[in-house]
Amino acid sequence: MIPKDPAYETRVRESFNRQTHMATLGATIAFLAPGEVHLVFPFAAQFCQQNGFMHAGAIASIADSANGYAAYTLAPPETDVLAVEFKINLLAPGRGEGFLACGRVLRPGRTLTVCQADVFATEATERTLIATMLSTIIVRPIGRPGPGEP
Amino acid sequence: MIPKDPAYETRVRESFNRQTHMATLGATIAFLAPGEVHLVFPFAAQFCQQNGFMHAGAIASIADSANGYAAYTLAPPETDVLAVEFKINLLAPGRGEGFLACGRVLRPGRTLTVCQADVFATEATERTLIATMLSTIIVRPIGRPGPGEP
Amino acid sequence: MIPKDPAYETRVRESFNRQTHMATLGATIAFLAPGEVHLVFPFAAQFCQQNGFMHAGAIASIADSANGYAAYTLAPPETDVLAVEFKINLLAPGRGEGFLACGRVLRPGRTLTVCQADVFATEATERTLIATMLSTIIVRPIGRPGPGEP
Amino acid sequence: MIPKDPAYETRVRESFNRQTHMATLGATIAFLAPGEVHLVFPFAAQFCQQNGFMHAGAIASIADSANGYAAYTLAPPETDVLAVEFKINLLAPGRGEGFLACGRVLRPGRTLTVCQADVFATEATERTLIATMLSTIIVRPIGRPGPGEP
Repeated sequence: MIPKDPAYETRVRESFNRQTHMATLGATIAFLAPGEVHLVFPFAAQFCQQNGFMHAGAIASIADSANGYAAYTLAPPETDVLAVEFKINLLAPGRGEGFLACGRVLRPGRTLTVCQADVFATEATERTLIATMLSTIIVRPIGRPGPGEP
Repeated sequence: MIPKDPAYETRVRESFNRQTHMATLGATIAFLAPGEVHLVFPFAAQFCQQNGFMHAGAIASIADSANGYAAYTLAPPETDVLAVEFKINLLAPGRGEGFLACGRVLRPGRTLTVCQADVFATEATERTLIATMLSTIIVRPIGRPGPGEP
Repeated sequence: MIPKDPAYETRVRESFNRQTHMATLGATIAFLAPGEVHLVFPFAAQFCQQNGFMHAGAIASIADSANGYAAYTLAPPETDVLAVEFKINLLAPGRGEGFLACGRVLRPGRTLTVCQADVFATEATERTLIATMLSTIIVRPIGRPGPGEP
Repeated sequence: MIPKDPAYETRVRESFNRQTHMATLGATIAFLAPGEVHLVFPFAAQFCQQNGFMHAGAIASIADSANGYAAYTLAPPETDVLAVEFKINLLAPGRGEGFLACGRVLRPGRTLTVCQADVFATEATERTLIATMLSTIIVRPIGRPGPGEP
């Protein structure tokens, strides 16, 4: 996949650094290439559900950003990306030392880009697939109002 | 809808209080009845995306818990609930003083319960629908291993 | 909801009549208003799954068209609509004399419209909710290439 | 992936042959192995949408069956499978000489199995990805009532 903006990497990192939710969750970019972004984040006791596993919403947050930035690597200059919708299947408990969310573009588009993210729990010697997410992402000129905006 | 456990309210509140992710996001229970749970949470700068709106994953976190607890109000004693999957459509930016996620049971089941949550941004005098989520939730005996568990 | 095209009803009916899949399934328009379209279709032995119930894909076909035409009632002149994605929860077996799919717009948009369809099995004296679908629909100028088109 | 029923292939073919909807759409099994089922079907003018492309519901029907039978290859004896829900992204128009739906198991489970199907339009010399579907499938003892059944 060919990026339309030669500065795609800088742009993705700048946008990612503005996502306070990613900093709060302790997520960082582990890999970035055209059409693909991997994020890592540690297990953290303050983002858990009732049984002490990572909350599905915390996992979904990282998968959503991985997919959004995978789409953003291919977007033209002077555009932004926004998730229109996503669907996640939770395949195993959010248990592990850390987590890895691998987002990749399935189909790039002028207006809509479709991405999939696989999320793994990672231990010293193994990784387990714990979730997969399909996302629809809209690419729009910066400054243009988004869904529901006046 | 008729709860199978007379202690459903206590049970929901105890489980909700164990979800550290809800405390971290500042979410509280605003309404609780058989088949329906409403959660409220404030806008908070540390859970935002790149444009300063609440991150879709933060919104999804609350909608997921609202649906899970709506399902839990109808579950038999000695059971727990777990999200199998969910899909969320983001309809407007996560902007507002606060937010309200209204989860309700569409179809209760012995094994699977289907719920829908509407999420509103709330201002002093109005509310705006910003997201809707469809969730599939599994009800299982406490102590029985979940998906992907040995 | 206010239609942008005064000829919305004619336009919807003409487009619906071009959908050979709807004719094949025996579906007809039962109700049509701005933002809402209901389709009815009979039980038919040739669209079943392995246990003699209507196949989930047949039910999804009708729900998809109900949502698409609900969106189309609100689209501007000289535009067409196309489903970007949908998600359906099957809530009960596709068993009954006939079926009713009620599609309605949750959020109309310039580019994307989000709709929900409830599908009921209908008998002489009762109806049962058997499925619900959330759809994302793109509105685009007629003649403009769609997703994946050159 | 290891089938729990040595007669899995016979069982899948017998069940597939009872799906009248597959026969109506002209679908046949092109490949069958533990955890994976591919179905092929021709373009047919009677299952189209308003622009003469295959209707999204027809495509979803085949993808749903491909996923269901992929799950069924791994299910224990004396069980049946049923789609709980699915989500499909339409990536390109349903245009082509024929179509291929490749369903595979992402995570097998005692109660729930998660599958993904990729659907391709096929021409003499090339294939194009036109849709992808994520499905949740329930495995249950034969004769046990399904969702919504008494």
